[in-house]
Amino acid sequence: MKIKKFFVVKEGNVCTPLGFVSSGISAGIKKTRKTDLALIVSEIPALATGTFTTNQVKAAPVHVSMEHIKMGTARAILANSGNANACTGVQGIGDAKEMTNLAAMMLGCRETEVLVCSTGRIGRLLPMEKVRRGISRAVKNLNREGGHLTAKAIMTSDTVEKEMAVRFKVGNKTVHIGGCAKGAGMIDPNMATMLSFITTDAAIDRKTLNRCLHNAVEQSFNRICVDGDMSTNDTVLILANGLAKNPILKSYHPELELFQSALNFLTRELAKKIVLDGEGVSKFVTVAIKGAAKARDAKAAADAISHSCLVKTSWAGNDPNWGRLMAALGYSTAKVREELVDIYYDGLLVVRNGKPINYPTKKLTQIVSKPSFQITLHLHLGEAEYLLYTSDLTEDYVQFNMSE
Amino acid sequence: MKIKKFFVVKEGNVCTPLGFVSSGISAGIKKTRKTDLALIVSEIPALATGTFTTNQVKAAPVHVSMEHIKMGTARAILANSGNANACTGVQGIGDAKEMTNLAAMMLGCRETEVLVCSTGRIGRLLPMEKVRRGISRAVKNLNREGGHLTAKAIMTSDTVEKEMAVRFKVGNKTVHIGGCAKGAGMIDPNMATMLSFITTDAAIDRKTLNRCLHNAVEQSFNRICVDGDMSTNDTVLILANGLAKNPILKSYHPELELFQSALNFLTRELAKKIVLDGEGVSKFVTVAIKGAAKARDAKAAADAISHSCLVKTSWAGNDPNWGRLMAALGYSTAKVREELVDIYYDGLLVVRNGKPINYPTKKLTQIVSKPSFQITLHLHLGEAEYLLYTSDLTEDYVQFNMSE
Repeated sequence: MKIKKFFVVKEGNVCTPLGFVSSGISAGIKKTRKTDLALIVSEIPALATGTFTTNQVKAAPVHVSMEHIKMGTARAILANSGNANACTGVQGIGDAKEMTNLAAMMLGCRETEVLVCSTGRIGRLLPMEKVRRGISRAVKNLNREGGHLTAKAIMTSDTVEKEMAVRFKVGNKTVHIGGCAKGAGMIDPNMATMLSFITTDAAIDRKTLNRCLHNAVEQSFNRICVDGDMSTNDTVLILANGLAKNPILKSYHPELELFQSALNFLTRELAKKIVLDGEGVSKFVTVAIKGAAKARDAKAAADAISHSCLVKTSWAGNDPNWGRLMAALGYSTAKVREELVDIYYDGLLVVRNGKPINYPTKKLTQIVSKPSFQITLHLHLGEAEYLLYTSDLTEDYVQFNMSE
Repeated sequence: MKIKKFFVVKEGNVCTPLGFVSSGISAGIKKTRKTDLALIVSEIPALATGTFTTNQVKAAPVHVSMEHIKMGTARAILANSGNANACTGVQGIGDAKEMTNLAAMMLGCRETEVLVCSTGRIGRLLPMEKVRRGISRAVKNLNREGGHLTAKAIMTSDTVEKEMAVRFKVGNKTVHIGGCAKGAGMIDPNMATMLSFITTDAAIDRKTLNRCLHNAVEQSFNRICVDGDMSTNDTVLILANGLAKNPILKSYHPELELFQSALNFLTRELAKKIVLDGEGVSKFVTVAIKGAAKARDAKAAADAISHSCLVKTSWAGNDPNWGRLMAALGYSTAKVREELVDIYYDGLLVVRNGKPINYPTKKLTQIVSKPSFQITLHLHLGEAEYLLYTSDLTEDYVQFNMSE
């Protein structure tokens, strides 16, 4: 059997799939005059689906986009940075709706075909005069080469643009998936918001698209932890316009697995970029739990470890402090039997049956001093596994988030 | 009706109640040669009860003390700092038992009448030769003035001794309660352990003593959060020897409420001292939740806020960042309706119905710049309340925990 593959498109972004144009401009929402308004448009109506923050306090644009996406198709994603439009009451909802309304008028589509996102400071009304003028310019600037500017315009305290595209064959047609993301923290911060916009020219039915996106998000954006805080604005959106003209991907389609693999790869890479570019992050750590009794135990163990301030600060100090891993494991809700636990650092066995073995200290210190390493905890209670990407907790993180 | 009162005993400690002697010596467990072995002894067998870490990974002394305390009476509490005797397997259990055995022999009591605690580095065997010699010296040094040294000998990265005693009348007899505690973090750290030892000369039945201790711990040591990590060694123990010869306090006794109030006060003050002396703590923050639908909602909301790195770093920066409070509230498991939430800083209303009001910015900044302030979140969904004591998250915390 021939193995089907996907390929990374060099300098790919949300405009790599056929039929997408985008822009990123400075509307003056950010005091710094950096770009702060992004627009992605599909030339024809695209199937649309998304996942949204589970935070009970949701920003106004989240409410609006959750409503609009029920229609099933969309033409555009409009996003501003520099202001979260959260905790802004009825006025905030009105402003988010006006943004979609204005963009729809200029693009010649229905208001419900525009999805809207915001990221930035909480509790301040949007400067709507600037936003209105900005939308007009964003529409005028739409072009096939706008992808990079779009990725830039959604950045807050991100230091690098996070974007990517992949391509693969379905039948004799080339299908593309492109995406951009922004991550944890803000220069003018109140929240660490995660946004990701994904475009594809794949022909796919919406139910399948929805399932694929949820699968992808579960193994990527839902597996990253920088500081454990969850934003009021987190949103992942995908638009699929079908212009690749491939045989429609349905649940029974043999190529669906390839689409899912490619989407998983793209979202995971974007998610990893978010961790790497997290505020004050100096280390990228993969936490792998093996041998858990149940799936929820594996997840609970990984969550406890990746949220522990003591664990994360020890990583910042290149300290192979496995005792803190044991403690976090113990207070997690995961079923644990101390005397069965094995701990590995990048494959080096350090703890066996809950006790330290005579490991080479120097080698262990070398591993935790690397910018990226994996810790594996084997619970020896079952077959469940879980993987999570996290970071250290540094003085820079604190310094960054102390001041506005 | 005359209000019954209790009084703080000046320079009071675990030796303030009648019939208690104690000591604190340097056994050489800590490399720094600071004191590291503490012993508290009641001259007659005392009723004993305690609460222990719920961490599934429990240190060896926790297992031993949980077993011994089932007997209901004890003569002594023996505690070392500088080594947690955790993740030390069968040998660790043997060492903890040997500690109780040695102390029992020298004190002329049963092994099960000695309770044992450890705090310090995880995963290293105790230097038993030093511990043995140390126990012998700790027994020889027992005296009525040993309380302060005892409080000192259980310290790890604590910078001040935490100790206190209160007195009050039951009938015509004076009853005393004394206590010491150690808090979050270690100079030679692997864990932030919380230990507290309480002594009283009250005559009380054991069931009542147990209930009183659990009540007291629930509103004190269970309400503090520095970094959200829970140790393998956390232990609170109380010994009641009855030498005050008061009428025995039973569940229906009219003076029981006074005993409970005094114990609550003492444990709460010790708990607050732990937060104030937390690693790198520059601010003491009381988080009050009001109007929650249910008790568990109130607790969940307070927990989420006091565990949020973003919230805690903003406090470190004197930043009245109520947006981060809203976000943490929203992702907690507490039932929340954003449009009902009010937020106060020290009584100053800042957010009403989920939106910021036109508050005096300068006054708000003054409040969050104080070393101690209270935030109150009113959910307007019911009657449940919860109060929690927490701290900011500073660069000093990270610096401290980065290095061993």
